[in-house]
Amino acid sequence: MKVKSSKDFKLQRDVEYGTPEQNETVKQIVATIKKEGDAALLRYTEQFDRTVLTATELRVTPEELQAAYSQVEDSFVTAIRAAAVNIRAFHARQKRSSWMDLQPDGTILGQIIRPLKRVGVYVPGGTAAYPSSVLMNVIPAQIAGVPEIVMVTPPATGGKAGIDPYILVAAAEAGVNEIYRVGGAQAVAALAFGTESIAPVDKICGPGNIYVALAKREVYGAVDIDSIAGPSEIVVLADDTAEPAYVAADLLSQAEHDTMASAILVTPSQSLADSVAAEVERQLRDLPREAVARASVENHGAIIVTESLQEGIEVVNRLAPEHLEVVAADPMGLLGSIENAGAIFLGPYSSEPVGDYFAGPNHIIPTNGTARFASPVDVDDFIKKSSLIYYSKEALLRDGETIMELARREGLEGHARAIQIRLENEAKGGAEDGE
Amino acid sequence: MKVKSSKDFKLQRDVEYGTPEQNETVKQIVATIKKEGDAALLRYTEQFDRTVLTATELRVTPEELQAAYSQVEDSFVTAIRAAAVNIRAFHARQKRSSWMDLQPDGTILGQIIRPLKRVGVYVPGGTAAYPSSVLMNVIPAQIAGVPEIVMVTPPATGGKAGIDPYILVAAAEAGVNEIYRVGGAQAVAALAFGTESIAPVDKICGPGNIYVALAKREVYGAVDIDSIAGPSEIVVLADDTAEPAYVAADLLSQAEHDTMASAILVTPSQSLADSVAAEVERQLRDLPREAVARASVENHGAIIVTESLQEGIEVVNRLAPEHLEVVAADPMGLLGSIENAGAIFLGPYSSEPVGDYFAGPNHIIPTNGTARFASPVDVDDFIKKSSLIYYSKEALLRDGETIMELARREGLEGHARAIQIRLENEAKGGAEDGE
Repeated sequence: MKVKSSKDFKLQRDVEYGTPEQNETVKQIVATIKKEGDAALLRYTEQFDRTVLTATELRVTPEELQAAYSQVEDSFVTAIRAAAVNIRAFHARQKRSSWMDLQPDGTILGQIIRPLKRVGVYVPGGTAAYPSSVLMNVIPAQIAGVPEIVMVTPPATGGKAGIDPYILVAAAEAGVNEIYRVGGAQAVAALAFGTESIAPVDKICGPGNIYVALAKREVYGAVDIDSIAGPSEIVVLADDTAEPAYVAADLLSQAEHDTMASAILVTPSQSLADSVAAEVERQLRDLPREAVARASVENHGAIIVTESLQEGIEVVNRLAPEHLEVVAADPMGLLGSIENAGAIFLGPYSSEPVGDYFAGPNHIIPTNGTARFASPVDVDDFIKKSSLIYYSKEALLRDGETIMELARREGLEGHARAIQIRLENEAKGGAEDGE
Repeated sequence: MKVKSSKDFKLQRDVEYGTPEQNETVKQIVATIKKEGDAALLRYTEQFDRTVLTATELRVTPEELQAAYSQVEDSFVTAIRAAAVNIRAFHARQKRSSWMDLQPDGTILGQIIRPLKRVGVYVPGGTAAYPSSVLMNVIPAQIAGVPEIVMVTPPATGGKAGIDPYILVAAAEAGVNEIYRVGGAQAVAALAFGTESIAPVDKICGPGNIYVALAKREVYGAVDIDSIAGPSEIVVLADDTAEPAYVAADLLSQAEHDTMASAILVTPSQSLADSVAAEVERQLRDLPREAVARASVENHGAIIVTESLQEGIEVVNRLAPEHLEVVAADPMGLLGSIENAGAIFLGPYSSEPVGDYFAGPNHIIPTNGTARFASPVDVDDFIKKSSLIYYSKEALLRDGETIMELARREGLEGHARAIQIRLENEAKGGAEDGE
């Protein structure tokens, strides 16, 4: 891992929008599903997932869900239940209520908060199938009160059941009971527009490959989508109180995700920088995913030595990382200066995997510098708000002239007249008398 | 206005994405601004707005802002101040605090809420320049605590100052003091990427023409954007207690916006349907914007007669209108059944213009059926959240094995080792001793 001065560090951001061919393919898949429904869905599943299904086989049965439990270790079930308890407790604190402001003249203003009605969660297949991500997508929707949560996930090539039992158990533990074995752009299109077998949803979330990402972008507007996640990132901001072996292990836990993942140490301590570089090399050597992690740290990793901890915070704020660990003498004292970071881990025991799996906060966090304006997935992502206006007659008579003044300045006489007709009619004795 | 049965009513939704040529033009403008900065910005302003400016003339001066007050009526200033008071009071209720959950073992979990740092508000020129929209975009950002709010608006063709004084006064009253006379896709690109004269922002909001909408879509990801608004819509759900003249006036207040605007009455009362149809025709005849409103009601308006009020609510929920008026014997009694509506106006005195200008709730509301999953602009649109995890040593020792179990089931050994190295080291006497 290269150690460099903050002077020589230049921030790079790439956003993947797919090739023109990929975009064209996705557009065509989405249009075909919209037009042909199940028939197209089954055809694409055969073509892309090499799995021949009938429409009635699309949905995972209660028996299959039950059977999945016998295919996983009890220790896994125990662990995922413990994680679910923590994730529920954290997200329950985010739940908000509708409110009303009752005014002395009888006017009521308010904000009504309601859950979305139906949400679709995409779960990738293969090695990118993470049971923990099932919990992180489903539980906030549940806490929000979404009554219908549906999951789609591609069948393993060639099989019929073919869904990872860990994923099925996580879904069952999270409380999802509507699961379809479809994946790719065709699954996203089915969720957005509905088919004979799958009713359309209001929002689609969850990660996927480039085709899934492009399909989500394509259907956005017809339904809501979550953000399109980029490669995972960690920045560790540390002073010389940090244990180099811990820092190195945390950097590698991010680097092992993906050759595109980024792991960066920012420190004012040259000696910490050197020790972490050595520790990374030492720990890399017997990591099962060494090749991935090595490519990640070599191409996207960095150890940046700053003049001061303060300058380190400035670097962090420019990076706006998905995950930030602050390992310093007084991490809480630095919190006020950290403007941009999706999730902030403080102190030597808050290793990133604690948050990835267990502590309770969501592990779906804005990447690629978008923590400047975006937030981790939470209950707010699964609600919608409506404004409420119940204006009293007294209030309208009082405010009517002012409202008309503003409408007329904007050249909207029809707006003014909607008020005027009421003021005139009420002066004549009220709506009850008609005109 | 045509009266039809709910059986014959079919919902249509169109989303405008621009022509391929418009998309190409916008892509080119955005790329050029990104590369050439001010020079390109001035060139495009000359080309599209026929206004020759130097870089130092881009920003509106404090003297111009002051001078705008002498060009508007005192009654306007009074009215806009009264509206601003109400809008501030309503949005202040949406402000949320960071929170922490302190656990007995010393662990702290939390959610940090911070304002975005810099927000850009686009204000269209010409007849679409609405002072009220300036308040509706700026005040929620202010309440959120955004320290830098910057406005862009195209100069009137040929002039140098050339900005509508009502817009300038609204901006000054809202507290915006950084205003640039640029518009179109070039202004959006300047806000997103910055130029020598305009520092880049974190989020761009506000309405504009198709070029502005496409430019916002193009820069999304580099910065956040608000939603792309469609034509305005009103649905009035009324029973026979409604005053036909009021209902007709409210429908027309929406129809006068735009030939694409949609005004729909849903009622179980055939007699109300007939009276409103007659009233609409009567009121249309002497409306200044008759041509616009007539085109709107003829092409996008409808009076839908339902079997019952309950069926009317179902129609409303399918329409998911931007604005919904409920004029019925007991409007509050229907509120619980209304699932999808951006803003809900209850009772005979809650005419839509009351909310457009004055009551306090935001008038930027999801259109085109997106109230199924989207919400009116509010303080939440100008904040970002960060998760906080301060795990205690005791908690890590307790939960470490469970976290490792979950990491290993996902094949992420590096994640497990980040925990394991701590557990092993702490067993040996803690981080203080090193390895």
